[in-house]
Amino acid sequence: MMSTWEEKVHKVTPYTPGEQPKNQDVIKLNTNENPYPPAPAVKKILDSVDYEALRKYPDPAAAGLIGALSDTYGVPRDQIFVGVGSDDVLAMSFLTFFTSGEKILFPDVTYSFYDVWADEFRIPFDTVPLKEDFSIDVDGFCKGTAGGIVIPNPNAPTGLDAGVDALEQIIRTNPQCVVIIDEAYVDFGAKSVLPLIDKYDNLLVTQTFSKSRALAGSRIGFAFGSKKLIKYLNDVKFSFNSYTMDYITQQVGMASLSDPDYFRMRCLEIINERERAKKEFTRLGFDFPDSKSNFLFVHHQSKSACDIFAALRENNIFVRHFDGERVHDHLRVTIGTKEQMNALFDFLEKYLKED
Amino acid sequence: MMSTWEEKVHKVTPYTPGEQPKNQDVIKLNTNENPYPPAPAVKKILDSVDYEALRKYPDPAAAGLIGALSDTYGVPRDQIFVGVGSDDVLAMSFLTFFTSGEKILFPDVTYSFYDVWADEFRIPFDTVPLKEDFSIDVDGFCKGTAGGIVIPNPNAPTGLDAGVDALEQIIRTNPQCVVIIDEAYVDFGAKSVLPLIDKYDNLLVTQTFSKSRALAGSRIGFAFGSKKLIKYLNDVKFSFNSYTMDYITQQVGMASLSDPDYFRMRCLEIINERERAKKEFTRLGFDFPDSKSNFLFVHHQSKSACDIFAALRENNIFVRHFDGERVHDHLRVTIGTKEQMNALFDFLEKYLKED
Repeated sequence: MMSTWEEKVHKVTPYTPGEQPKNQDVIKLNTNENPYPPAPAVKKILDSVDYEALRKYPDPAAAGLIGALSDTYGVPRDQIFVGVGSDDVLAMSFLTFFTSGEKILFPDVTYSFYDVWADEFRIPFDTVPLKEDFSIDVDGFCKGTAGGIVIPNPNAPTGLDAGVDALEQIIRTNPQCVVIIDEAYVDFGAKSVLPLIDKYDNLLVTQTFSKSRALAGSRIGFAFGSKKLIKYLNDVKFSFNSYTMDYITQQVGMASLSDPDYFRMRCLEIINERERAKKEFTRLGFDFPDSKSNFLFVHHQSKSACDIFAALRENNIFVRHFDGERVHDHLRVTIGTKEQMNALFDFLEKYLKED
Repeated sequence: MMSTWEEKVHKVTPYTPGEQPKNQDVIKLNTNENPYPPAPAVKKILDSVDYEALRKYPDPAAAGLIGALSDTYGVPRDQIFVGVGSDDVLAMSFLTFFTSGEKILFPDVTYSFYDVWADEFRIPFDTVPLKEDFSIDVDGFCKGTAGGIVIPNPNAPTGLDAGVDALEQIIRTNPQCVVIIDEAYVDFGAKSVLPLIDKYDNLLVTQTFSKSRALAGSRIGFAFGSKKLIKYLNDVKFSFNSYTMDYITQQVGMASLSDPDYFRMRCLEIINERERAKKEFTRLGFDFPDSKSNFLFVHHQSKSACDIFAALRENNIFVRHFDGERVHDHLRVTIGTKEQMNALFDFLEKYLKED
């Protein structure tokens, strides 16, 4: 029989992104979005952006945005990479650094896209189980034989911060591969490993505008690393798609960086609300890892996560529930505004009493 | 000796995008951009876009934009795919459809990214030489043994339209693989193969907002195909990056589609200017394939392309010159406004007389 085009297709199991409810009355604590708007400077730039400039290709090097990141973080321009969200930065990094055929490592409970990319790019991998308390098993990452390592810090969905010393140990003991520390949530209280990029040329630090800068809708991710790492990453990126970040998004990113006070204020509001939430959840009979992120990974002493999830959902409060042996009795709750969190706790108080 | 992370890097030769001059006085006829602004509706949407919505993730399915494309082109939603520019759509298509290990085919003189992606994704390929007159060698594509086929129509940088009948012959004789017709320039006078997508389930038609809709700065590409093709493409796309098209870009795309009269008017202006340019170039001693795109691929009977290129550049008129045996004595000139083209012809007239 003749061969068909369909036999040649690279078939994958599609990934399902977190639900985006159409109903506007929903309290949306399920996708780790920032409950506050982006910096007012973003509104200003949108009001004044030169729409005629859209007829021209954007700057493929995103020099303006790279310059603003350089100023903000005190890192030279040639040590900064930008992409269409952290996911783009991470996918390009996997393609660039993890193709030796040797197994890469990441935690068993972690960001759900790592194994998707590994499968997609045919990269073999092993997972290193988190310890019983959900903390990173540092020794498990320090064998010095991995083809690559990626660890989020704080980790998701646990929210735990491994600390700079533990991460430095992992980076130092793995000079044979690139170590990616995915700091999507670092601005909510953990310490960044950014100062280590000049000490270890195998360290790539990735961050995003989606969480702490309230710009999930704009898709801006970035990475810091040694000049060599960033050059390799750019070479692959430019042979993949030269013009990924559009003109307006570059402007929006620069506007966001122009207001560091607003940024710090909003991060602090979320941190304060998270600390209050810890007390409320404890009072209501929940336990959780001590999160340094904008979410809490909660487990109730008597009620099942599935039941609580369903009850919340019925009352238009969306949180995230994951399948998987170690996590299925937990819920990931994004820190919202004080009003949203009060509505959550009011409901939980009544719901848990009723039973 | 110990292995280093650098041995594991996937090293590629970086691609160099067309030059974007900083000088605003330049007459920029080198990157096939539209000389006119996008539809006024784009300005309106930017003035009124809800900036607070940026804190939330964009719709990963881009349902609004897909709906507007569906209405505009009369194609069901599940037969439409969108991406961050044609390049993203094409790269995803290569990853999805061209990974059988069998050689894919494209013309020897064509869009310069096809062989870059093939190398990047380790896809073996052969090129089918254009005929002496730069037209597509249809028979060369009709052997029925390819692992995949990609042909731009009109072709770049020649501008030639192969015609629907020739393309249908290629699609019909290659049921064993996906055939991509890259219609980036189709709105400037060629006929689209879009009506064939229901007849051949191996046909993918890609288009872009970058040229005819004057939105190169926004990065919007799209594709039409059978439901099966589009589903496979989405599965790979969602396992790569769920949120590639940002919120504002989706709004901009919808706004552009909302004004079909403006779109047609601007396309017609460019077509008319191209036809006038053909007469002027002929008068000045140039010959060229009979372009149906927004550029002309010109060759002078006595002056070398390199000399003309350098003289134009010195006078702040940028056109595109490619290396390569068959094309190095041609220049690709984007069709600009009447004023820009008059400046070009005034200069050429003087320059060619002087010699």
